[in-house]
Amino acid sequence: MKAADLIDVARAAGQMIACAESCTGGLLGAEITAVPGSSDVFDRGFVTYSNAAKVEMLGVDPATIAAHGAVSEQVAAEMAFGALARSEANVAVSITGVAGPGGSEHKPEGRVCFGFATKDGVKTETVEFGAIGRASVRAAAVNHALDQLMHALQP
Amino acid sequence: MKAADLIDVARAAGQMIACAESCTGGLLGAEITAVPGSSDVFDRGFVTYSNAAKVEMLGVDPATIAAHGAVSEQVAAEMAFGALARSEANVAVSITGVAGPGGSEHKPEGRVCFGFATKDGVKTETVEFGAIGRASVRAAAVNHALDQLMHALQP
Repeated sequence: MKAADLIDVARAAGQMIACAESCTGGLLGAEITAVPGSSDVFDRGFVTYSNAAKVEMLGVDPATIAAHGAVSEQVAAEMAFGALARSEANVAVSITGVAGPGGSEHKPEGRVCFGFATKDGVKTETVEFGAIGRASVRAAAVNHALDQLMHALQP
Repeated sequence: MKAADLIDVARAAGQMIACAESCTGGLLGAEITAVPGSSDVFDRGFVTYSNAAKVEMLGVDPATIAAHGAVSEQVAAEMAFGALARSEANVAVSITGVAGPGGSEHKPEGRVCFGFATKDGVKTETVEFGAIGRASVRAAAVNHALDQLMHALQP
């Protein structure tokens, strides 16, 4: 199981993880904590579904949301940075996207933006998973976040 | 689908929901947000896996954790109250339990405490799901929380 491997790698590296999730609504945290012993490496998650939650829980600037939309690398970066700053984690991942059905904010279904924050800074990326359906977009986003977390944690 | 019914009921009642999850790690938020349109009624979730997260994100008193343990109705009550106070929700549900495998804190596997907070106050309960396995305890806890949220929201 991918999450179990991630936990082994994080534990060996002495790293703690935090999540900031919008379109996945807690699914990444749920996947990580499905593994017994995940409390060794998983600190907390922020399920910032509404824009108000992104601002209040993670310190995202409302002007960033207004300028770029909630589904943007700019917002993903601020979400990841906020999760890192407001947790005991060494690495924080953020997910914000259009799970569908249908697009929103003039953005296509299946577009998901990710942020990865460590003490060295924040990296972002956008992945177009396409109009594969809400459940599949969410599952693909979680899978991608797990892969990228593993990549970030491996020596 | 149970979550879809809950969203319909919450929308009709004009109520917003927040979650504070420990042992389920985001699974309740994920279940609710699996439904298209859930943003109408789901505000945010707090995945407070570590004790530090419970204190920092929800304002749980460390003395309550020290006195009763993280898996207790007292902590569940403070988690639900904190989630209500720190969100735009009208009803907040908390989940803290021993998902297993094995017991912890001298408490048996499968014991889960719930809190339900509204402006009228906080109710708590403890359910013993038994040693049915980590995934089953977590799924049963989410199912129970959905049932109780539905009960709280129905006129």
